[in-house]
Amino acid sequence: MIPDLEGVLYVLPTPFREDRQIDLRGLDSVVEFALRSKVQGLVILGITGEAHKLSDREKVEVVDRVVSRVGRRVPVIAGTGNLSTDVTVSFCKEIERIGVDAAMVLPPKLAKPDDEALVSYYKELSQKVGLPIVVQDEPVTSGIFMGPLLIAKIREQVDAARYLKLEDPPTTTKASKLRSLLGDKIKIFGGLSALYFLEELESGTDGIMTGFAYPEVLVRIYELFVKGQVDEAAAVYYRCLPLIRYEAQPLLGLAIRKQILHRRGIIENPLVRPPGANIDELTKKQLSRLIERLNQTQSDFKF
Amino acid sequence: MIPDLEGVLYVLPTPFREDRQIDLRGLDSVVEFALRSKVQGLVILGITGEAHKLSDREKVEVVDRVVSRVGRRVPVIAGTGNLSTDVTVSFCKEIERIGVDAAMVLPPKLAKPDDEALVSYYKELSQKVGLPIVVQDEPVTSGIFMGPLLIAKIREQVDAARYLKLEDPPTTTKASKLRSLLGDKIKIFGGLSALYFLEELESGTDGIMTGFAYPEVLVRIYELFVKGQVDEAAAVYYRCLPLIRYEAQPLLGLAIRKQILHRRGIIENPLVRPPGANIDELTKKQLSRLIERLNQTQSDFKF
Amino acid sequence: MIPDLEGVLYVLPTPFREDRQIDLRGLDSVVEFALRSKVQGLVILGITGEAHKLSDREKVEVVDRVVSRVGRRVPVIAGTGNLSTDVTVSFCKEIERIGVDAAMVLPPKLAKPDDEALVSYYKELSQKVGLPIVVQDEPVTSGIFMGPLLIAKIREQVDAARYLKLEDPPTTTKASKLRSLLGDKIKIFGGLSALYFLEELESGTDGIMTGFAYPEVLVRIYELFVKGQVDEAAAVYYRCLPLIRYEAQPLLGLAIRKQILHRRGIIENPLVRPPGANIDELTKKQLSRLIERLNQTQSDFKF
Amino acid sequence: MIPDLEGVLYVLPTPFREDRQIDLRGLDSVVEFALRSKVQGLVILGITGEAHKLSDREKVEVVDRVVSRVGRRVPVIAGTGNLSTDVTVSFCKEIERIGVDAAMVLPPKLAKPDDEALVSYYKELSQKVGLPIVVQDEPVTSGIFMGPLLIAKIREQVDAARYLKLEDPPTTTKASKLRSLLGDKIKIFGGLSALYFLEELESGTDGIMTGFAYPEVLVRIYELFVKGQVDEAAAVYYRCLPLIRYEAQPLLGLAIRKQILHRRGIIENPLVRPPGANIDELTKKQLSRLIERLNQTQSDFKF
Repeated sequence: MIPDLEGVLYVLPTPFREDRQIDLRGLDSVVEFALRSKVQGLVILGITGEAHKLSDREKVEVVDRVVSRVGRRVPVIAGTGNLSTDVTVSFCKEIERIGVDAAMVLPPKLAKPDDEALVSYYKELSQKVGLPIVVQDEPVTSGIFMGPLLIAKIREQVDAARYLKLEDPPTTTKASKLRSLLGDKIKIFGGLSALYFLEELESGTDGIMTGFAYPEVLVRIYELFVKGQVDEAAAVYYRCLPLIRYEAQPLLGLAIRKQILHRRGIIENPLVRPPGANIDELTKKQLSRLIERLNQTQSDFKF
Repeated sequence: MIPDLEGVLYVLPTPFREDRQIDLRGLDSVVEFALRSKVQGLVILGITGEAHKLSDREKVEVVDRVVSRVGRRVPVIAGTGNLSTDVTVSFCKEIERIGVDAAMVLPPKLAKPDDEALVSYYKELSQKVGLPIVVQDEPVTSGIFMGPLLIAKIREQVDAARYLKLEDPPTTTKASKLRSLLGDKIKIFGGLSALYFLEELESGTDGIMTGFAYPEVLVRIYELFVKGQVDEAAAVYYRCLPLIRYEAQPLLGLAIRKQILHRRGIIENPLVRPPGANIDELTKKQLSRLIERLNQTQSDFKF
Repeated sequence: MIPDLEGVLYVLPTPFREDRQIDLRGLDSVVEFALRSKVQGLVILGITGEAHKLSDREKVEVVDRVVSRVGRRVPVIAGTGNLSTDVTVSFCKEIERIGVDAAMVLPPKLAKPDDEALVSYYKELSQKVGLPIVVQDEPVTSGIFMGPLLIAKIREQVDAARYLKLEDPPTTTKASKLRSLLGDKIKIFGGLSALYFLEELESGTDGIMTGFAYPEVLVRIYELFVKGQVDEAAAVYYRCLPLIRYEAQPLLGLAIRKQILHRRGIIENPLVRPPGANIDELTKKQLSRLIERLNQTQSDFKF
Repeated sequence: MIPDLEGVLYVLPTPFREDRQIDLRGLDSVVEFALRSKVQGLVILGITGEAHKLSDREKVEVVDRVVSRVGRRVPVIAGTGNLSTDVTVSFCKEIERIGVDAAMVLPPKLAKPDDEALVSYYKELSQKVGLPIVVQDEPVTSGIFMGPLLIAKIREQVDAARYLKLEDPPTTTKASKLRSLLGDKIKIFGGLSALYFLEELESGTDGIMTGFAYPEVLVRIYELFVKGQVDEAAAVYYRCLPLIRYEAQPLLGLAIRKQILHRRGIIENPLVRPPGANIDELTKKQLSRLIERLNQTQSDFKF
């Protein structure tokens, strides 16, 4: 029995080889890197994992490899995309069998936002699948806006929907509203590339699901925060913000993140699958300068 | 060698059984129905085919079944979705091997419309795959607007991109601009549920790809038109418009279409895979009344 | 005291002169034309009225001219756009003073759909302004989707919000759901260029707000329908549908509508204010052919 | 003759009184505050200025007051919204007469992005109005994506279009592409709440148009950068980033900015006109804590 989700759940990128096929050994390497960083769980097949650029077969390959590599050391959560109910159900059954611990489920691309249809979707899923569900509140990708009342309704009617990945800004006020509606009946995780990590924790979130290329820092911030050393957590966080923010650039972010992981020796090739922006010379230089400058600060941590 | 595409290319729905699995015999039945109606080709895995609600495996199943049933009597075109370059390439290779005659390719969901990236996408596809390409200009689904100059650029740089499915209204003026830019170097097919079929033909299109539940009428309109009997074509078309328009209702359209095919005895179950609107009692009644009234008109054709 | 709104409320275009300034005499002419056609009310400053391309001063000019020309022969409804609460309130006060009978209010462009904020908006408006309110459910323009439950909530909490302009398809099923939620506590008007006029009436709407260039036909259909002669209403409607549908073309529709009004001698200049598509030669020809063909049908009505 | 635009052009908020009317004395106060901060110009009627929530009359009031208060000490740029060509032309003529130095022009909400229509729009404007034009590349508000080639085309065909406000991320790579296409024929200003200010300058921008509540810091960063003291500029920038980022929160940002200006004694009332999020208690507390922590750092500058 896997303990309840909380803390830093690291969103894994999918490494590719020069021929643009999945680099399975690179995937092992990212898993080990994340576990060495002491993250409390792993998230695969998210947007950062380029799940929308993988075939069904490739998705299962990623799940298989990661679950077997992790060997139950931490929980593994997998994204399911927003397909039809039937396809999501059968994908969930498959990953449950492989050993995934929770399914992260984007609301389906209905032609039209419709509260009842959304509740039914999650309800049917929970009736047919045994996995706990992370409701993914990410309107940019899903095109679906879910207000706090709707999320509360889903939580109340769908027992399995115990977790929320909250990426609908402003996340601080939304987390706080959800907490006042649902108390501790829901676990809330931030995201948004960690741009508001500390403030989200102050607003009552239970952790974060994100893929910042220095997960060890996120873990440190989280640990200081839960020990009540909030100012110390803030000091570490503020020091990282120039880099967190640079990595959070729309469109370019994933290429920057993979570039850093490549420089750190975690993945062999920083390639992003096309169509999708790869790193350019200007960005490489800016990234190097930024890291150099950050490392000139007195600190026990070097980027 | 399949002759060049033109005329009425019928967009097939995917029939489902009560348990929401694909009804393969229903698929055979729809194929035979379309061929009896004398359509000049078949289009599978379009939006009407609920392709976005099928798993990769199910998509291949549909392709397999339809290609083998058709037995080269007419060309078969298959939609590929808008995945990553690599997934689209490998899907295209698979359907080429099975015997599909052309790939209908939606522009990829780039985070941002970018002319160069779009041209490269189609170019790389054509370099790696042997199939002719139908560029699918459907901005509502793809989120990508392609102006006439961009479409001309794709046509000029990508030899395989010989066809265009045009669903960006107003289609009449766009078809006419494309014709003046590209002459007969491109074959243009309308869509939009046949709402502007006659006017599109008058504007220079080469046919239509749509799934109106009475394909035999579309064939008759097309044949009259190409024989120069435009007023006769118009008379048939105008008579059908109340029904064409009713079937074209946003969100409800597919449920209505499947309902008609069900009443006509072509498919056993009119089910639309959830999430997706199924037929309600009000709509059933309105549809019946509409058909009754149309059938009171003096005509050699009954709905 | 103006009687309650119902029937065909004609949405007026704003005619412009060659120099692109408002043609006030043309506006008089459109008003008289509509009244001759026996419409039950007039709607100004809608999207068809190009309200979003008028300055505040021009909007007041239009209201002034139309209200004074109508001289209380029928009710006049004016659109208010979706500005801030304060600007909408002061605009409503101004048009109330001039003599408008109801304000048609699009939900405000909130950064995010939020039920409470929407209800508050209409509530504050009704507290500060005396006019009845037509809630405008037109998600394409407003960017705001309002489900039946939200509309019912607005109706229940805002006494002045007695009317709904429904342009969120499928309008038939939505009208029917609203009727079952609200009974006759709300008056519902269709729109959508009359593309589903008959079916909307069959679903329980109280009339339509639209600007089809032959309002006399809409009036005839409505009158036949309310007298219970539904098949006769249908016959007239079906005969007009080829033209209604042609005029409903996205982007081109207003240019076609103004072109017909120009041909009918109602407005001197068919100009649409830029940016906005004006009529082209192809469309002019198609329109002429279409009208010729329709007029070959045996009927007491000629287009 | 006003010197060419460059450096920090401060985007002014519009202060409101408790009764939600414009606080004209507050506007004077914001102007003087910005000038004391040594900004090189002022931008009014931007999104930060809540221009879309002002009536035409109120907009002119703001322009009048600011221009007269500034007394030509620095250039004043005014936003024009994205109305019809005619309304924009007459608004531009009015603000030119009042003494504004440049018009910031969002591309018009065409129903459809269309290169030719966009170039024509700016061309016609420049033919009818004498003001230099700042093309505003802000796709979230305008709904219009303009690629580098289109911007280059506008620059080449429209002499007055000498400036670009660039808010289409990633701004660094876009600025760099534009520089390589257009050399120094265009002045490029960043925005995006200063989230990428330093990197934009490194990519070749000429300054920034933004409304961060501590403009004196932006000026200092800019001055250090142009003197070649880039590492010093970076040190100041990185120190401010926690606050810049917090103020950049979607939806909440303007309320936070006005709250800071209120705390600094610049405006009496931090009110944001409804509909629009106002500050809540959670955010007030987080803001206080954030500023306290930043002020614990050794520095010659206190927030």
